[in-house]
Amino acid sequence: MTTKVIAFDADDTLWVNEPYFQETEKIFCKLMDNYLPPAETSRELLKTELKNISLYGFGVKSFVLSMIETAARVSDGQANMELAGKIIEMGQVLLRKPVELLDGVKEVLQELNGTYYLVLATKGDLLDQERKLQKSGLDKYFHHIEIMSDKKEEDYRKLFKRLNCRPEHFLMVGNSYKSDILPVLELGGYAIYIPYHTTWAHEQADEEIESPNCCKINCFSELITLLKK
Amino acid sequence: MTTKVIAFDADDTLWVNEPYFQETEKIFCKLMDNYLPPAETSRELLKTELKNISLYGFGVKSFVLSMIETAARVSDGQANMELAGKIIEMGQVLLRKPVELLDGVKEVLQELNGTYYLVLATKGDLLDQERKLQKSGLDKYFHHIEIMSDKKEEDYRKLFKRLNCRPEHFLMVGNSYKSDILPVLELGGYAIYIPYHTTWAHEQADEEIESPNCCKINCFSELITLLKK
Repeated sequence: MTTKVIAFDADDTLWVNEPYFQETEKIFCKLMDNYLPPAETSRELLKTELKNISLYGFGVKSFVLSMIETAARVSDGQANMELAGKIIEMGQVLLRKPVELLDGVKEVLQELNGTYYLVLATKGDLLDQERKLQKSGLDKYFHHIEIMSDKKEEDYRKLFKRLNCRPEHFLMVGNSYKSDILPVLELGGYAIYIPYHTTWAHEQADEEIESPNCCKINCFSELITLLKK
Repeated sequence: MTTKVIAFDADDTLWVNEPYFQETEKIFCKLMDNYLPPAETSRELLKTELKNISLYGFGVKSFVLSMIETAARVSDGQANMELAGKIIEMGQVLLRKPVELLDGVKEVLQELNGTYYLVLATKGDLLDQERKLQKSGLDKYFHHIEIMSDKKEEDYRKLFKRLNCRPEHFLMVGNSYKSDILPVLELGGYAIYIPYHTTWAHEQADEEIESPNCCKINCFSELITLLKK
């Protein structure tokens, strides 16, 4: 293994993300309480999100649009538009959240910055991810930023081409087994899996595959020890 | 002028875009007829869009969110959620529109493809622009795709760096004086302005600046004659 490029997922790998979405979803379900119990609204919302994902892609705006669509459907169009206004506002609060770095992230990036070509490889909304990166103060550590519409094999293939990097020189670090680990391993790359305490239902995958190209660590700072091996 | 890289804007330069948005806005204004005359709803919508642009960025999802916010405000929250459902659906229709190429685009790209390094440089929603490019069948002519959150001087500076291209070797072709022409000229690059018959209010700018680095043409195929000079 001669790693030259290390790419990092962003949401829930470098900084807190999913808990903010879950917090917002909780408020949304409460707002819909007159029509459905929270757990059912939550299921309805996931159904809407999955239906829309190929059309909308990932990120806050897609999430807000799916909440509004769910609210219209669940209330049979009968709730009033004040509700839509509230959901829009919840989305704007989400977009304005401060960026909270996960433990050890800054120190590790600082240390790796001299030795490897560091890439941020994240999916989601273009402007929102750029803004989060800027707020995070981590932009100075990255040599290349890639905001992707998805993270499937085909998308990583394009990234390798863009970086002019062979898979065996590429190491991906992330919290989603489905988006950060599996496709990279499939292409012959390396991956380090750092699970986060919570994952969006859509990102959940069986974590059975054992590959000599993949390692699981529990905290970000283990990365340094691992790379020194 | 030794052009090496030619970058093309996409919406209303390569394919039809703004008329679809205007069509949708017209339907929206009609839906709001009980609350406000269409021209006033249109003004309210633009107000909402301008307020949100730095938070949402460009593209269909932002447009839909701003229509819903406007509907909630204009109806004082009293319209019912059926309206939000209809707006969501209008947005989904917009995202599924076929891509209609402008005259001469395919032929010109085909001809330039061997001689220049061709770049697509567009702003808007990441997934939507990727999808439109794929639907257009033009992807094979481009060496590099850059979907940008904005097109200000700073954004072009980053693009030059990414392409490893000096401004004097860069030629931008587009229909927005504000986004495609002015910032590129400011940085010392070249630009060809192809006005489209309709422009979104936010993109309108005075077209007074006369620069030896800029040309205005009326149709796409004039590009070839111009580049041969």
